[in-house]
Amino acid sequence: MKQPDKHPAMIVHERQPFNAEPPLARLRQSFLTPEELFFSRNHGSIPDVDPDGYRLSVGGLVDGSLELSMEDLRERPKSEVTAVVECAGNRRDGLMGVAPIRGETPWGAGAIGNARWAGVPLREVLLEAGVGEGARHAAFVGLDEVEGADGSFNYGGSLPLEKALSPEMLLAYEMNGEPLPREHGFPLRVVAPGYIGARSVKWLSGITLQDAPSDNHYQAREYKLFSPSATEETADLSEGMMLGELQVNAAICEPEDGARLTAGPVSVRGYAIAGGGRRVERVDVSTDGGRVWSQTDLREGTDVPWAWSFWEATLELGPGEHRIVVRALDSSATTQPATAAEVWNFKGYANNSWHGVKVTAR
Amino acid sequence: MKQPDKHPAMIVHERQPFNAEPPLARLRQSFLTPEELFFSRNHGSIPDVDPDGYRLSVGGLVDGSLELSMEDLRERPKSEVTAVVECAGNRRDGLMGVAPIRGETPWGAGAIGNARWAGVPLREVLLEAGVGEGARHAAFVGLDEVEGADGSFNYGGSLPLEKALSPEMLLAYEMNGEPLPREHGFPLRVVAPGYIGARSVKWLSGITLQDAPSDNHYQAREYKLFSPSATEETADLSEGMMLGELQVNAAICEPEDGARLTAGPVSVRGYAIAGGGRRVERVDVSTDGGRVWSQTDLREGTDVPWAWSFWEATLELGPGEHRIVVRALDSSATTQPATAAEVWNFKGYANNSWHGVKVTAR
Repeated sequence: MKQPDKHPAMIVHERQPFNAEPPLARLRQSFLTPEELFFSRNHGSIPDVDPDGYRLSVGGLVDGSLELSMEDLRERPKSEVTAVVECAGNRRDGLMGVAPIRGETPWGAGAIGNARWAGVPLREVLLEAGVGEGARHAAFVGLDEVEGADGSFNYGGSLPLEKALSPEMLLAYEMNGEPLPREHGFPLRVVAPGYIGARSVKWLSGITLQDAPSDNHYQAREYKLFSPSATEETADLSEGMMLGELQVNAAICEPEDGARLTAGPVSVRGYAIAGGGRRVERVDVSTDGGRVWSQTDLREGTDVPWAWSFWEATLELGPGEHRIVVRALDSSATTQPATAAEVWNFKGYANNSWHGVKVTAR
Repeated sequence: MKQPDKHPAMIVHERQPFNAEPPLARLRQSFLTPEELFFSRNHGSIPDVDPDGYRLSVGGLVDGSLELSMEDLRERPKSEVTAVVECAGNRRDGLMGVAPIRGETPWGAGAIGNARWAGVPLREVLLEAGVGEGARHAAFVGLDEVEGADGSFNYGGSLPLEKALSPEMLLAYEMNGEPLPREHGFPLRVVAPGYIGARSVKWLSGITLQDAPSDNHYQAREYKLFSPSATEETADLSEGMMLGELQVNAAICEPEDGARLTAGPVSVRGYAIAGGGRRVERVDVSTDGGRVWSQTDLREGTDVPWAWSFWEATLELGPGEHRIVVRALDSSATTQPATAAEVWNFKGYANNSWHGVKVTAR
């Protein structure tokens, strides 16, 4: 399988399927994440799609099904959104520090990126097909093939119809002003701002309106949140909460964990996100485990509805070892839990506990 | 001043203005909180309004201002919403246990109620007046008079226009199928589901569309969230985050704090809310400080968008002292911070840390 064209500094967790994330300091360099530093999250093959032969089918509970070529899609209204795509497993490494999590990628805080996506509003296409009676969910299926226990199948997932019809939802054919890169879903992908990345289905081949969520493995049995008392052995994967909206979250990108620094003023920088359509209102850092907090300065992104917010602070660090932690507060005055133990779950999703780095100053 | 007709068991924090909350076990008895047990939160007088002479004025950045009598309002489409109204200071007592908070009511977890409200959709009235160019906020003013440092003024607050135009927003003239009680805003009040109670302005006399939030004291200087490092002495009240959407939260209503019980199976019951338009997905209880959690059974309300959810569990308690804590998880997989210290702020708002009760079993 051809490997995507990624920066050599990328941390590769797996080659096949290809799964990689950027070092955090590099990620923090651009408000719009360049393709070469955008995390790669794949469950199967990376299809090589001929755009001329490509067709998107829209069917299920619609008034009339559609078959759209890329040319058809480009003729329709074009819209843009600057939005984060974040893997539900971002920061799983923090949960793995509490108790083992088996068979899942040990993502650091780099399974997230922010890009300017452009394409056709999903809403346009759904209204053109006509939303039929009883339609409650929009199910997506991709052209990527996943090897499952019972043979191979195509990746898929779904969204509640209300979200699918929201104006921010895109069928994207551009990323940061360029044609969508092959690894990010060329020629067409879903972009579901504010939702876990798993719903932003790449290499989109079909949309089906239906009365229930997708029965695809990745909707019905993966990307589900279980109670902290559930285990791999005891959990019924058909139960559990289907993950959707992202949680308020923040990470320190600089200095890196384990860094050795000169004592004195230290610049601390990172990203923060709010859940759903909310705003990041405040980001705090602490060097004493959260007894005293300093408010950071919010930089790019706070006024961009679906984007991340960059933040920065200067901390005065004396000689010795320090643990710096960060937390964000969103526009619903919701903040993050303190410890990974509080949010641990055996699949390792949705870790939005305080992020921290240990540094030594001298 | 005439006192409202409240249940004798109400815990009265202040007589003038009248501020009172119900005991939690009584609150948990009805999914729809009866008037006599609904918390009272007042900043000033409780007006005695003649409904015949009453007029609602709608002005500011509108195409044409309106003056509406109660008869006019009743002629317009009628809508219903079952929604929680919660004071931003609910559970302040928990924050006061961390560090002193001066000049504010020490609310327990009873500054919340859930009722079936009926009236005219606010959206209908705003669209009838015509939303003018530049309108970004809907400001409300009530007929209640508050004694301020510089004389008396009318209570007020505002909402972002987007929220004001949402279908769930009501100008309510009924509560639980009866005319709105005097103490709850007769003849007309705002009901802003999912927002702090302070925005559900009672005895509504005017709505003004404007380009900025209300400059009323209770929008511009109160109901604001400050950083944990801000203090009464150092904070600039014109700064701080204007509170809006509620946070995911939960409380134990039975057994009551300090209860003496018979060892064995103990029924634990309470309420939970999600923020914004989200759903309560799960409520967990723990008797060991959050190391092991038991999932509770969700009862009434989980399918009612703006209502609270009732929950219930049976815990096996051995002889001795126990602290039971609760936390909720909402449909964005967001849960609550563990300790009141983490969310402490000098005005004492938005305490959504784990709620707990201490009980003794023998």
